[in-house]
Amino acid sequence: MQLGIIGLGRMGGNIARRLMRDGHEVVAYDRSHETAVALTDDGATHATSLEAMVASLAPPRAVWVMLPAGAPTEDTIAALGELMEADDIIIDGGNTFYKDDIRRAKALREKGMHYADVGTSGGVWGLERGYCMMVGAENETFERLEPLLKSLAPGYGDLERTRGRNAPDDRAEQGYIHAGPVGAGHYVKMIHNGIEYGLMQAYAEGFDLMKTKSSPDLPEDERFDLNLADIAEVWRRGSVVSSWLLDLTAQALAGDARLDNYTGAVADSGEGRWTIDAAVEQGVPTPVLASALFARFRSRQENTYADRLLSAMRFGFGGHVEPPK
Amino acid sequence: MQLGIIGLGRMGGNIARRLMRDGHEVVAYDRSHETAVALTDDGATHATSLEAMVASLAPPRAVWVMLPAGAPTEDTIAALGELMEADDIIIDGGNTFYKDDIRRAKALREKGMHYADVGTSGGVWGLERGYCMMVGAENETFERLEPLLKSLAPGYGDLERTRGRNAPDDRAEQGYIHAGPVGAGHYVKMIHNGIEYGLMQAYAEGFDLMKTKSSPDLPEDERFDLNLADIAEVWRRGSVVSSWLLDLTAQALAGDARLDNYTGAVADSGEGRWTIDAAVEQGVPTPVLASALFARFRSRQENTYADRLLSAMRFGFGGHVEPPK
Amino acid sequence: MQLGIIGLGRMGGNIARRLMRDGHEVVAYDRSHETAVALTDDGATHATSLEAMVASLAPPRAVWVMLPAGAPTEDTIAALGELMEADDIIIDGGNTFYKDDIRRAKALREKGMHYADVGTSGGVWGLERGYCMMVGAENETFERLEPLLKSLAPGYGDLERTRGRNAPDDRAEQGYIHAGPVGAGHYVKMIHNGIEYGLMQAYAEGFDLMKTKSSPDLPEDERFDLNLADIAEVWRRGSVVSSWLLDLTAQALAGDARLDNYTGAVADSGEGRWTIDAAVEQGVPTPVLASALFARFRSRQENTYADRLLSAMRFGFGGHVEPPK
Amino acid sequence: MQLGIIGLGRMGGNIARRLMRDGHEVVAYDRSHETAVALTDDGATHATSLEAMVASLAPPRAVWVMLPAGAPTEDTIAALGELMEADDIIIDGGNTFYKDDIRRAKALREKGMHYADVGTSGGVWGLERGYCMMVGAENETFERLEPLLKSLAPGYGDLERTRGRNAPDDRAEQGYIHAGPVGAGHYVKMIHNGIEYGLMQAYAEGFDLMKTKSSPDLPEDERFDLNLADIAEVWRRGSVVSSWLLDLTAQALAGDARLDNYTGAVADSGEGRWTIDAAVEQGVPTPVLASALFARFRSRQENTYADRLLSAMRFGFGGHVEPPK
Repeated sequence: MQLGIIGLGRMGGNIARRLMRDGHEVVAYDRSHETAVALTDDGATHATSLEAMVASLAPPRAVWVMLPAGAPTEDTIAALGELMEADDIIIDGGNTFYKDDIRRAKALREKGMHYADVGTSGGVWGLERGYCMMVGAENETFERLEPLLKSLAPGYGDLERTRGRNAPDDRAEQGYIHAGPVGAGHYVKMIHNGIEYGLMQAYAEGFDLMKTKSSPDLPEDERFDLNLADIAEVWRRGSVVSSWLLDLTAQALAGDARLDNYTGAVADSGEGRWTIDAAVEQGVPTPVLASALFARFRSRQENTYADRLLSAMRFGFGGHVEPPK
Repeated sequence: MQLGIIGLGRMGGNIARRLMRDGHEVVAYDRSHETAVALTDDGATHATSLEAMVASLAPPRAVWVMLPAGAPTEDTIAALGELMEADDIIIDGGNTFYKDDIRRAKALREKGMHYADVGTSGGVWGLERGYCMMVGAENETFERLEPLLKSLAPGYGDLERTRGRNAPDDRAEQGYIHAGPVGAGHYVKMIHNGIEYGLMQAYAEGFDLMKTKSSPDLPEDERFDLNLADIAEVWRRGSVVSSWLLDLTAQALAGDARLDNYTGAVADSGEGRWTIDAAVEQGVPTPVLASALFARFRSRQENTYADRLLSAMRFGFGGHVEPPK
Repeated sequence: MQLGIIGLGRMGGNIARRLMRDGHEVVAYDRSHETAVALTDDGATHATSLEAMVASLAPPRAVWVMLPAGAPTEDTIAALGELMEADDIIIDGGNTFYKDDIRRAKALREKGMHYADVGTSGGVWGLERGYCMMVGAENETFERLEPLLKSLAPGYGDLERTRGRNAPDDRAEQGYIHAGPVGAGHYVKMIHNGIEYGLMQAYAEGFDLMKTKSSPDLPEDERFDLNLADIAEVWRRGSVVSSWLLDLTAQALAGDARLDNYTGAVADSGEGRWTIDAAVEQGVPTPVLASALFARFRSRQENTYADRLLSAMRFGFGGHVEPPK
Repeated sequence: MQLGIIGLGRMGGNIARRLMRDGHEVVAYDRSHETAVALTDDGATHATSLEAMVASLAPPRAVWVMLPAGAPTEDTIAALGELMEADDIIIDGGNTFYKDDIRRAKALREKGMHYADVGTSGGVWGLERGYCMMVGAENETFERLEPLLKSLAPGYGDLERTRGRNAPDDRAEQGYIHAGPVGAGHYVKMIHNGIEYGLMQAYAEGFDLMKTKSSPDLPEDERFDLNLADIAEVWRRGSVVSSWLLDLTAQALAGDARLDNYTGAVADSGEGRWTIDAAVEQGVPTPVLASALFARFRSRQENTYADRLLSAMRFGFGGHVEPPK
């Protein structure tokens, strides 16, 4: 089917390519003229403006917005809301906060337009592996988009089927689901990323404990100079902690087990933060997910005010002078 | 090669079977006569006592102890230390604290005996999938045991090879490593389990946040009745959080997404605890691993003294009467 | 000076009384007729409606709203915004989210009205001890309210003066501060409560560790049957952990060190939650404050979905059947 | 009474002084000759060696060891065990791990000697304020030491008495307790310090949240430039979070609210660590105490291996290049 795509970065560009490989027709727009033109080599039609894109799509239209969350996405969807018409669908495939989806869909609904939020996991690997997608939308909207989702999803692949699974449809097994009404797609994707932070931090702490086991402060016979690349590799085989993140860890350590090329100032995105906000709102204890987020915050700071205050208190009650860092 | 195996439970029995399938000769002992006899159907020789087992093995011997950590393993290894001879090898394949390994090996070394600690992951699936093993031992001991390890390990399987991996040997890719001197095998396995707790808790918190998203306390358009079985299934395909633990989650939820058959009183074992002790000893912050352990402690308690003290303080400063649970 | 007070519960009633004791004139309103009438015994004038209260105050007026956060406060302030006039001041002395203060003040400013948010600590003890207050307001508003604040605050008391303190004014030492513009008062109070949760949980965990030290699972010579009431008492004297919360702990334990009368289902309020939201928004790691909040969430639950999922995974990989709770 | 004191540092010296002020007779030893001699000005007798000290005390003797935990204390007590005689008492007033107390007492008991572990809080303030002491010892030993404890303790002071307190003795109110058998004194002191870490971290996080509220990243009307010195000061009066640590915070902030003189590399001691080990051993969830300890570990590190591994994973799945720190 025909689809407009706005935002042709790492994610948007590959989504367009994967769709075209499967026979879909893509009208592409990016604020960088060159980026958009580049995609015409893969068969896309190039639109020079949002207006041009909307004009060149046959109604009822579907436009996939794949932009950074926040203002870029918000402004673009607001503009599309002016340009598009009743029955058209606007898809937000980015990392939008799910309450923003709900708000936007409500506004668009008044004009007869439809909205879908597509939580998309797959990163730079999606073009080849396919994208794992969680969709929030009304039933009819979801059904209209399903041909696209099928093309983007990884499909069954060679994964072993889940024992005991007996579901009415096989969408999940193909790699996409209709998670629920508008917002549900991004909510599920948000939780996905919250979990991702927790998983990553669990590995990071464990490997740190193995790295520091070589410390000269330890008794000699309790000091191990462990080969972390080999450990990640061996755990990929038959262990309880095997995962795709472990595969990536093995890959990173195979290259340089000291990881000296990384600064360790770890970015975080809205989704990890909103997950904790959701936990607070819903009264659910999430110590691991929160700890993982806080570890990232901390990784970007040094000599924090909190730590200095601890030092100041220690000086106050014990005359302790904290050693230089 | 020939091997004595002590302890024929879920793990030990299957280890024996997998070894015999690959042509090794097993002399088996279990304090339950019936359990030991049952293994003779698979080709094992049955020993009626530790003494009989040692007597029936040709020196230099190797005996694999596969018993619960603590007294059962400790006592058995002490007994073997009396029965066995110089050049013999005692293998502890259980979940022993690595400092106990170091102590035991030191004592056995005085008699010329050798010791290997084999951290073994694989659970009930090991017979078919193979066991992932991390070995602590002197070089020569490791080499003598290697034929057994090769048979027990999963082997390459159909896993994609780690990009950029360029290691001097391929043991890790076959599923076993020589982690380091005595103790290193169990240390690595201990960290493995510590990570396992963290990973599990990350998923658990995330799924809880999705479960509670159906709460009637939430505004109607922010309330989602999510299909958790489908979500686990779709994440298995192309998402960043795919893992074996997620596969198991998908399986559990496919059966009963409400999980009503589980009490939620979650056991923990020595390894999760020792991981935190190691973090404390080595000065490594491990908020995620510790939180995961504490969540298990808490899952087995109710109406804790700590919580009651909070209530008592709240009554003290605010006259608050805590609502019944 | 003259002040209208709305909401004569535990806090509002005592605030009115403390003001009248110091010569201020109070016009009181409560939706419970009886509660309002009761205060006339202490010298208050009783208003039968918001309209009547506003009518009976001489302009420029000041009205203190002391109601539960959320709808009760929001609706009352909206109503006052209709009834009151330019130059009048509306004071929110409750536990409002500081961003709501900012929004309200902005709306009232358009009508020439003023707003002050007064974070108030002191609980049921305030009538005698005085209230510790943090005020968010424009300078002029703050100055107009200062006579009231002076009367409500504890004053110097017999506290030792802070060594090295050399501040331009002594308000903080009297027990009230002008924290900053509108919102700042409630922000500081919010953080105060966030800290309070952390402090309380620290004591709770420590006392739990002393309580459980009597467990029969411990070796006999490491098992202590500690007198927790005496410990709290002794720590009040010269120890680093002495505090008012410890005083309350000592008091609770003096009554019943087993705390059997408390359910341990610990409530939490908006302020503890918003503190974590602020941490997430500002990128500040707050593991202790978040852990304290999560402990309260957990205290009100049992048999959580998260815990049951852990059990289900454990069954999946190890065949473990979790013991009944 | 007569007492030998070994170790005349900040703590030991002042303990000696406070005892002599109350009429006790002190024989003092320090490996620094000068330090020991200095104390003779205050009335102490100076011993030039352990042997000389023991010789100059009249049996049955009491010797208070006030040295750094670990080897200095361990070796000194071992030496005293050789020099002293049946009925003599060795007191460890330092920060020893309570299981070491139990072990030592057992060994000394075989020679008829007695042991007492005195957990001592008070820091540099103890000389004037008195020391808060928790004692582990057999009943008879405790009673023999009681005259010393009475002199060292703060006494009733001008603290308000705990409402409802009805205890068989008033020792706790004087500032010392017989916590239980050997080990109990240091166990209670250990928990005291664990709580201390939690309290300190709670304040530190809260003040950090107030400090960062001035960040230019925040919307202008939500940005507050808070006077932290005033806030600490005002909270001292009538607020729920008032405490001695808050007094110290107020003092530190009065001097320099930016705390620029502190490195923020916060030391931790054995007691904070052992508290977490105890929690792990006893199966008690202590998320706040553990988080506080981990924050200290983290404060002394930068660019951790754990953080770099997170960066490496993020590069692996998303091509993210972490921004320089």
